[in-house]
Amino acid sequence: MVYGRGSFNQLDEILAPNRKENYPMIFLTDHFFQGKPLLNRIPLRGNDKILFADVTHEPKTSYVDALAQQLKNEFGTVSGIIGIGGGSTMDLAKAVSLMMNNPGSSANYQGWDLVKSPGVYKAGIPTLSGTGAEVSRTCVLTGPTKKLGMNSDFTPFDQIVLDPELTTNAPANQRFYTGMDCYIHCIESLQGTYLNEFSKSYGEKALELCRNVFLEKDKWDDECDDKLMMASYAGGMSIAYSQVGVAHAVSYGLSYLLGTRHGIGNCIVMNHLEEYYPEAVIEFKKMVEKNNIDIPTGICKSLSDEQFDAMINVSIGMKPLWENALGKDWEKIMTREKLRALFERL
Amino acid sequence: MVYGRGSFNQLDEILAPNRKENYPMIFLTDHFFQGKPLLNRIPLRGNDKILFADVTHEPKTSYVDALAQQLKNEFGTVSGIIGIGGGSTMDLAKAVSLMMNNPGSSANYQGWDLVKSPGVYKAGIPTLSGTGAEVSRTCVLTGPTKKLGMNSDFTPFDQIVLDPELTTNAPANQRFYTGMDCYIHCIESLQGTYLNEFSKSYGEKALELCRNVFLEKDKWDDECDDKLMMASYAGGMSIAYSQVGVAHAVSYGLSYLLGTRHGIGNCIVMNHLEEYYPEAVIEFKKMVEKNNIDIPTGICKSLSDEQFDAMINVSIGMKPLWENALGKDWEKIMTREKLRALFERL
Repeated sequence: MVYGRGSFNQLDEILAPNRKENYPMIFLTDHFFQGKPLLNRIPLRGNDKILFADVTHEPKTSYVDALAQQLKNEFGTVSGIIGIGGGSTMDLAKAVSLMMNNPGSSANYQGWDLVKSPGVYKAGIPTLSGTGAEVSRTCVLTGPTKKLGMNSDFTPFDQIVLDPELTTNAPANQRFYTGMDCYIHCIESLQGTYLNEFSKSYGEKALELCRNVFLEKDKWDDECDDKLMMASYAGGMSIAYSQVGVAHAVSYGLSYLLGTRHGIGNCIVMNHLEEYYPEAVIEFKKMVEKNNIDIPTGICKSLSDEQFDAMINVSIGMKPLWENALGKDWEKIMTREKLRALFERL
Repeated sequence: MVYGRGSFNQLDEILAPNRKENYPMIFLTDHFFQGKPLLNRIPLRGNDKILFADVTHEPKTSYVDALAQQLKNEFGTVSGIIGIGGGSTMDLAKAVSLMMNNPGSSANYQGWDLVKSPGVYKAGIPTLSGTGAEVSRTCVLTGPTKKLGMNSDFTPFDQIVLDPELTTNAPANQRFYTGMDCYIHCIESLQGTYLNEFSKSYGEKALELCRNVFLEKDKWDDECDDKLMMASYAGGMSIAYSQVGVAHAVSYGLSYLLGTRHGIGNCIVMNHLEEYYPEAVIEFKKMVEKNNIDIPTGICKSLSDEQFDAMINVSIGMKPLWENALGKDWEKIMTREKLRALFERL
């Protein structure tokens, strides 16, 4: 990994030893950067290509499959996939890299340790901080039957470039929602049953950085970008060795049915988790207030029973998350009825 | 990386995909473990071999060269080198791995970015916490003319297994000296001019863990082993992106001339660095007192001018360390006369 302001300028040098003759590097770049100056700084060589990632919606398995097929048709294979963007772009880059070398549909690999072969070389360059997708061993995808990542030892990036300059000027709402993903990771990790000293060290540091940025600082400055990028990384490392919990399990249900994006979805859920994370919810609400952010409410009020069932099915299927949050007997605690009542409050 | 109590038991599974037919895994194991039960837990397969590392003295380039030559003579090449032990064993394992694939003597590669080819697969399994050698991009060696590591992008381990169980029962003095290596890394990193948010986050967390273990805890228990192992890792990560400082630069001179081991050498020096790290030296002395440790004094009192000069030459040659500690104009601050006076006080 490389960290530092301006480290994006080292990208050409970083990629050089990973280039394979005749096969391009593919810069899968968040469509937010179309027409932006960052494009001119991408070190294109030979038949390299910038592909814009449409992340209007979170990545779907069908989109991953289509992108991988497109690259196979055009180039046979590629030297590498370089993801430049937020969490969705990171996840997409990881998934496309894997699908260059694994047969069938990415939907077949949604789960834990189902991926059998390493992907092509992949690098992640976040332009928004908080998801931890730059270090996680998952890439969350919405498939035909579930929202679940391809969790495997082959999923993490081979290289990450953490350049806080790239997060300057992120929209304040988006930055907050994404930053809260990190905050919530830490709470879920630190209060989970899977915790060990590794996750604890990283989680505590990330939490401290989030608190500093979202509660103590009076205005957003470069130092905030520096710190939030480290917080995202450390938060990702923390859950790499533990798990997330209730907020994530519930928000996955929301995203699956309503397409609610992950960051804001987590915030919508966290707003109502006093029973599980009482102190953190108070702190979360302080952060919301101090940063003058709107958290939507009432988003489930007109849903049908079938729709609630669909959300509950996705959410309750996240067994490791529930077990981390509530312990081995989680099924006795989080019944379908209780979960339905929680969704109704959102 | 793998972290956790009992994770040593996963070693067979971890090594499996890295085995090359007919070529053994070499378990380079600290000679401290001769006849100890840990040996029976090493997952030997085929022509795998346990080699005991003689770490009575810190690793010399001649020893590295001899070990690599021995393995080449016996096996042609090997699947990998697995270092099991303290910092010296970690450094030795990294260096031997590199010398399996790089020509000449390891002395030719003492410096920064001189290594041209990746070594064979290498894994580090620390049994003593503090040096950060498990994550560093160096492997410190004493050569014919200097004490300096092979610092390169190829030097870090491919895999580390951090199992705090392995550090249980480490001798208290040794544990303290080695733990202080971590504490001193953090001080030097956090007070250095190379600091960035990456190094700061890791350094602060490692420092907090050291303080907890050496100042707040009333007796040594499993939690201390867990925390000190994380502290060592985080301290190593901190200096990976910054540098060490005055204590290390001076203690390298001591080690070169007198063979003083690194951990205790750092402590001997830190004891006299009030001018450079005033608050930390007070805290260090508290830790020494609370843990009832003896720090030798007067070790330079009978040295000749030639010997002082030899130490000064090695020490003053550590330019990046001095620059990190004292800034670009360090040569105006740390003259040979001033350094001599410091050595005389040790």
